[in-house]
Amino acid sequence: MKSVYLFGQGIAQGNAKKINLLGGKGANLAEMSKLDIPVPPGFTISTDVCNLFLKEKKINQKIKTDINKALLRVEKKIKKQFGDIENPLLLSVRSGAKISMPGMMETVLNIGLTTKTIPALINKTNNEQFVYDSYRRLIMMYADVVMEKAEQKNHINIREKLERILHKQKKISKVKKDSDLSVDHLKSIIEKFKKKIKTSFGEEFPDSCKQQLWGAIHAVFKSWNGKRAVQYRKIENIPHDWGTAVNVQTMVFGNLGKTSATGVAFTRNPSNGKNKLYGEWLENAQGEDVVAGIRTPHPINSDSKTLKTKKSTTLQKSWPKIYSQLLKIKNTLEHHYNDMQDIEFTIESGDLWMLQTRTGKRTGEAAIKIAIDMNKEKLISERQVIDRIVSKNIDEIMHPKVDPDMEKIYSPIEIGLPASPGGACGQIVFSASDAEKWYKKNRKIILIRHETSPEDVQGMHVAEGIVTAKGGMTSHAALVARGWGKACIVGCANLNIDLKKKTVQINNTIYKEGDWFTINSTEGYIYDQKLKLVQSNFTDNNNFKKLMSLTNKYKKLKIRTNADNPQDAKLSKKLGAQGIGLCRTEHMFFDTERIRSVQKMILSEDVESRKRAIMELLPYQERDFYTILNEMSPFPVTIRLLDPPLHEFLPSQKNKDLINSLSNDMKVSSKKIINRIVDLFEINPMLGHRGCRLAISYPEITEMQVTAILSATAKLIKKGIKAKPEIMIPLISSVKEFDHQKNIVKKIALQIESKYNIKIKYKLGTMIELPRACLTADTIAKSADFFSFGTNDLTQTTFGFSRDDIGSFIQNYFDNNILKDDPFKTIDINGVGNLVKIATKKGRSINKKIKIGICGEHGGDPKSVYFFDNIGLDYVSCSPYRVPIARLSAAKNSIRKTM
Amino acid sequence: MKSVYLFGQGIAQGNAKKINLLGGKGANLAEMSKLDIPVPPGFTISTDVCNLFLKEKKINQKIKTDINKALLRVEKKIKKQFGDIENPLLLSVRSGAKISMPGMMETVLNIGLTTKTIPALINKTNNEQFVYDSYRRLIMMYADVVMEKAEQKNHINIREKLERILHKQKKISKVKKDSDLSVDHLKSIIEKFKKKIKTSFGEEFPDSCKQQLWGAIHAVFKSWNGKRAVQYRKIENIPHDWGTAVNVQTMVFGNLGKTSATGVAFTRNPSNGKNKLYGEWLENAQGEDVVAGIRTPHPINSDSKTLKTKKSTTLQKSWPKIYSQLLKIKNTLEHHYNDMQDIEFTIESGDLWMLQTRTGKRTGEAAIKIAIDMNKEKLISERQVIDRIVSKNIDEIMHPKVDPDMEKIYSPIEIGLPASPGGACGQIVFSASDAEKWYKKNRKIILIRHETSPEDVQGMHVAEGIVTAKGGMTSHAALVARGWGKACIVGCANLNIDLKKKTVQINNTIYKEGDWFTINSTEGYIYDQKLKLVQSNFTDNNNFKKLMSLTNKYKKLKIRTNADNPQDAKLSKKLGAQGIGLCRTEHMFFDTERIRSVQKMILSEDVESRKRAIMELLPYQERDFYTILNEMSPFPVTIRLLDPPLHEFLPSQKNKDLINSLSNDMKVSSKKIINRIVDLFEINPMLGHRGCRLAISYPEITEMQVTAILSATAKLIKKGIKAKPEIMIPLISSVKEFDHQKNIVKKIALQIESKYNIKIKYKLGTMIELPRACLTADTIAKSADFFSFGTNDLTQTTFGFSRDDIGSFIQNYFDNNILKDDPFKTIDINGVGNLVKIATKKGRSINKKIKIGICGEHGGDPKSVYFFDNIGLDYVSCSPYRVPIARLSAAKNSIRKTM
Repeated sequence: MKSVYLFGQGIAQGNAKKINLLGGKGANLAEMSKLDIPVPPGFTISTDVCNLFLKEKKINQKIKTDINKALLRVEKKIKKQFGDIENPLLLSVRSGAKISMPGMMETVLNIGLTTKTIPALINKTNNEQFVYDSYRRLIMMYADVVMEKAEQKNHINIREKLERILHKQKKISKVKKDSDLSVDHLKSIIEKFKKKIKTSFGEEFPDSCKQQLWGAIHAVFKSWNGKRAVQYRKIENIPHDWGTAVNVQTMVFGNLGKTSATGVAFTRNPSNGKNKLYGEWLENAQGEDVVAGIRTPHPINSDSKTLKTKKSTTLQKSWPKIYSQLLKIKNTLEHHYNDMQDIEFTIESGDLWMLQTRTGKRTGEAAIKIAIDMNKEKLISERQVIDRIVSKNIDEIMHPKVDPDMEKIYSPIEIGLPASPGGACGQIVFSASDAEKWYKKNRKIILIRHETSPEDVQGMHVAEGIVTAKGGMTSHAALVARGWGKACIVGCANLNIDLKKKTVQINNTIYKEGDWFTINSTEGYIYDQKLKLVQSNFTDNNNFKKLMSLTNKYKKLKIRTNADNPQDAKLSKKLGAQGIGLCRTEHMFFDTERIRSVQKMILSEDVESRKRAIMELLPYQERDFYTILNEMSPFPVTIRLLDPPLHEFLPSQKNKDLINSLSNDMKVSSKKIINRIVDLFEINPMLGHRGCRLAISYPEITEMQVTAILSATAKLIKKGIKAKPEIMIPLISSVKEFDHQKNIVKKIALQIESKYNIKIKYKLGTMIELPRACLTADTIAKSADFFSFGTNDLTQTTFGFSRDDIGSFIQNYFDNNILKDDPFKTIDINGVGNLVKIATKKGRSINKKIKIGICGEHGGDPKSVYFFDNIGLDYVSCSPYRVPIARLSAAKNSIRKTM
Repeated sequence: MKSVYLFGQGIAQGNAKKINLLGGKGANLAEMSKLDIPVPPGFTISTDVCNLFLKEKKINQKIKTDINKALLRVEKKIKKQFGDIENPLLLSVRSGAKISMPGMMETVLNIGLTTKTIPALINKTNNEQFVYDSYRRLIMMYADVVMEKAEQKNHINIREKLERILHKQKKISKVKKDSDLSVDHLKSIIEKFKKKIKTSFGEEFPDSCKQQLWGAIHAVFKSWNGKRAVQYRKIENIPHDWGTAVNVQTMVFGNLGKTSATGVAFTRNPSNGKNKLYGEWLENAQGEDVVAGIRTPHPINSDSKTLKTKKSTTLQKSWPKIYSQLLKIKNTLEHHYNDMQDIEFTIESGDLWMLQTRTGKRTGEAAIKIAIDMNKEKLISERQVIDRIVSKNIDEIMHPKVDPDMEKIYSPIEIGLPASPGGACGQIVFSASDAEKWYKKNRKIILIRHETSPEDVQGMHVAEGIVTAKGGMTSHAALVARGWGKACIVGCANLNIDLKKKTVQINNTIYKEGDWFTINSTEGYIYDQKLKLVQSNFTDNNNFKKLMSLTNKYKKLKIRTNADNPQDAKLSKKLGAQGIGLCRTEHMFFDTERIRSVQKMILSEDVESRKRAIMELLPYQERDFYTILNEMSPFPVTIRLLDPPLHEFLPSQKNKDLINSLSNDMKVSSKKIINRIVDLFEINPMLGHRGCRLAISYPEITEMQVTAILSATAKLIKKGIKAKPEIMIPLISSVKEFDHQKNIVKKIALQIESKYNIKIKYKLGTMIELPRACLTADTIAKSADFFSFGTNDLTQTTFGFSRDDIGSFIQNYFDNNILKDDPFKTIDINGVGNLVKIATKKGRSINKKIKIGICGEHGGDPKSVYFFDNIGLDYVSCSPYRVPIARLSAAKNSIRKTM
């Protein structure tokens, strides 16, 4: 087993493909070496060694020998010797895992400085200040990283102690920048550092090069299991058994005076994708100075200038030769990696050295532009474009967002779950009715609620953004907001809402109605400030358009949308929806003009008056369906008959005002209303009297809705407009329920056909959203024209998880690695997915023509879309703003299947 | 197709096996004819004819011809002619379905009396009074049954009108009994009857024999689809397409004077099973007089005497020859049918005629005794004993009875006939519709009626017990109640019911609707008190014991019980449980000594104080498990770890008193308590934070419970007592949850084993109660020692039905034939059962040794037990009192499989 890989200056034992073994940094250092890019020579100790070390708590003799041999090769190459008293070699020891874990792991620089090598280096560089500055950096890093043990962190904290010494010296010497400290100051600091280390650890700072080197290597390996690193991996879902590689590399110095510098750059602009080098640099500095933000770095070229740096000197202007060398390297790297790179470099006494290259992080907008551009530049194929763009890229460009510059200035007061991405800014209110009041006064508002319910829908609609204290990523608030593309943060545990006083306490601050909040719901940040938002008109973006047309070229799965009004239908068509897969009808019932009829129906005491009340809704419903079918023509529209339990249409029992107003309007005693509310109360409404159960108890609801749908269809056909209604019966658990409703639908269809003297083509199918429906799908398929999986409810019943209540324990499930994904976001393939598969197979075994799709939240989730495509569904349906993501995902999956 | 079957006096074209075609009555009349038992000759028109008639609304010519031919044969046999003016034949026309539907269907007697035949019959019988009495009976029945159409019932009600005429005449003539009316009275009544009929229907009572006959046949067929009959079939789950046969039979007359009589009897005592003829008779009467309860009948022998009838004349004493002929027939019938028979007979001028035999309805106690006795008498085999006893029989003998100690204190206010044994306590109501109203309000009721009719059936069904003022042991109320195993007392002469005022006067006390009564219907005692009911000591019943030991001989399935305290454990062991399949632990948490610790745990703000609070429960829990394991030794005890959501242990938010008292006790502000209650509120608690989810959030609960279980086990083992704990993790949806808990259990087990220096054998398994657990049972089976299906929750999630909320629509589902059985009572084989099957198969495919059982409510339901046995489960577990039923069901299923 080879455990050490040389790189730099003509040697490259590794390459980019060995990333598992060498980590990202090491693999790419080797790759750059292959490309004849100047890389300071060094070697990478593999991740296997890391895992072995973590197991055996030591490095074995064989590997030690390999490392020593590699060091010898580096010494020969660079013509310096480690610990030499004439021409000493200094080394850096850096971590490098397969995936970058920024700031999580350790680095030690300037290894090799001892009382013996210092004079030689002074002699060589003729720069005493540089040498002692490097020495105090080494001592500080080494004490912190190598000497202090993890369990001592709390009570020793050597870095803080040493920094206090440095700070004190700067104060006494009246010096501001570290680099202004004189040699004497530095020497005094170094003495104090060494003393403090001795008293803290009971041992000296090692004056042996080799001891320093081994100490640093061990420390980097150990840092893989450091508390922060473990935590980070948990959050980012990085396996704990990957381990880190260690890169031991010749030091090059950006801090060797005015002919030296250090910098970082992206090969293209990571914010907007422009094909220009984009970066920052600092003269006479080491890499950490750029990153740490102690000195403000300069833009690398005019393309990198910002408002704050428009007058700064650029590398392009100062050192044009080095800059053009960098441009050449950009080119080489992009042509080699076929992607935008994030690079680190150092200029030592006029020589350019590359210290790192890796794939650069970018915004959605940049990602799309870069991919489309690179395809034009023939760097990547169309398939690669689709493969490279991820759903998050699209998500990001679709939503307005908080100005990133403002977010650098302010800190969030609370972090919740990013339920619906985007940004919003407004004055806070605490009830739906207040939201409506403020909205009417032209105020922008953020609605803050414990949680939301269908009664809040109007108030949510007028809010800029929604924040809830409870609920998860699929709570009512989250679903509704995401459907609308409205910014929403849920599950903000620190919100202490007082509805009476109309205040919310967050940590120790109390905010009152009308205070300004800004939310970044892409990340879940809440600010108690009015921050600027920046908008994106992504549908006009040519790169986005190009990408979307590519998806159609490659995908097989059809994409529909969930929409229940003509506006959403129009939007979704623009976003490429091929029909409506779920048109809910319940929101139509909440309209102020109609809700009284709905309530009258619920309060009716006999069938006849109930029928009368329901029939009052017919003209409204007919108009609803007419406009939607018209807008969506010639695509099909799947209309789900009324689904929610009736109590949702009555006020809450506690809301005396609403009850009284209802009582006055309806001329029904409030006692009777309250009785009915109590009657309708259910302990588990999710499993209660709703869906087709309602329609079986009150067939007149189905009669009215089907009359409305088919009348609208008839009128459209008469006008020569293609209307394709698909009537969907919700919450079927057995074919008998379906047939009961089918009989009603057929009866009404005959009536309408005879009334309009026309033949109406419609489909009649069902939402498959209960395990029992899946298990008996063969019998249902005999009767149904289509299935649409309601994976939200199916997930609830299959897991026995209430999506409204899961918030109280789902975090424990993630922490204990019981759940990897939220099953309400990403389909649970083994459980829920298995039921979908069983039902699809059973359904098709009986009825080959049956159309099968899904219309749960999962329709807009990439991993879920892959699954649904793989098991052969005909379509997925998702909220309008998820349509582009679903299209992309479907295309990605098609491509993967043929790769 | 043969449609008419002759019987009687040496001819028997049918037999008992043709029951589908001939109905019970017809088939058995033929069978008796075969056995040379005197049966008046006649013929049966088959159920096929009925169905044809109901379809075509008429009887076709071919069948008419067959009927006429049959009539001719009967005329020849009996040497009388239908409509003859010298020796006229009179006929009865009776319904006879496959299963007896007491009182639901129609009968017309004395057919063939016309102005032409009356003189001949007077001449023949020399009994003018008899002939006119028969004639007025014919007119009354015919008008009611044949002439009045179903849709006229409400506004005409001819029977009531004619009865008013009869009643008035009796009053005028100062006559009490019908039989005391003189010929003149009768003639006058007949005239008035005819007039009333003419004015009511606009047509004459037919004076043609043939018209009477055809009218009666049609009417009997039609009565199959009468409202009452349809309703009854719904309750009793009788298919609507069976149809009824019609029996046309020579009339014999029990009302021909002092040498004539009529009676009904059971070949053994239907209340207690004693092997003695048991019945009632009336001199000079027609059959309907016994059943209708107009005259109180006499006991047939001394064994049939009750407190009230102890001084009455018996048939045995009055007519010993006839009685011994009856005894011979009893013997013949029992040896032929191998079962107890319910017979009807008529004595005409000293000759005994049998009119009916059928399997007699009996109480549970009687059923068991009769079966066991008949096995001893070698009439039936052991397998037949098991096959014949149904779960209802066992259910019935376990039913509570009035506490004998209370009966010593209070005296009955009235003594009636003990029509259906048992005990009941409830508030009195006086109509079936009131009974239904009160029942819907969750009241327990005793229904008090003059007598019951088929229209009362719904009200009787919902009553705890039934009391009637009139009627004998074979009255409608008695038959129906006995069939249901419902407490019933009939013939309470002192009841003075006022239907308008809703009161009953008994002796000098007036009781009003809502007053509490208790009835001991084993003895016939009525108390005007709310007396305690106690379990009957059926376990001491030797026949029951014998039956139970037979179940063990034949069944394969193991039967366990659901019990969570030593008392229930003891009881269940006595009832034959082979272990505890579900020991819930939540009830233990509610104990007053402990609930404060539980609440402290819930209100804890940090892990440490939560752990402290939980550990306070350890000694209690250890004692709980010690006593149960000890009691159940050597059988296994499956202990389910804490399952319910935490909010169940806190007061409701509305209950200010409880919150304040908790606040005082705990020294925690009530605001904080309310906040916690709000925190814990869940929209769908069934799908919320409970089961293993709780234990994953708060692993200390598992730690405490497992410590308690295994410490108790260790202590028992040290004492030499076999303790077999099986630890069950509830509500698993994935193996990862299970493994999380398994790690805790294993850790604790090591601790306890080392503490007690002992090896503890325990099993660790899970409750499979979510669809996802079923679908991934193979992965779970890798880790688990046993599965126990929680079919209650599994039914909830598979159907998406909340058990608590299904009440609002399940009736609609029954009415629309969408559900046949309540899925929470009888396992839904196609859906839930399929999941159980899938999980069992998957589980066993991975882990051959895995033990699999069920512990939902279905464990005590016979049909469900058959299913679980058929798919090869190891055991079912049910509540203690269902254990005998489960044992019987398991035995029945074993026998069926080998039949």
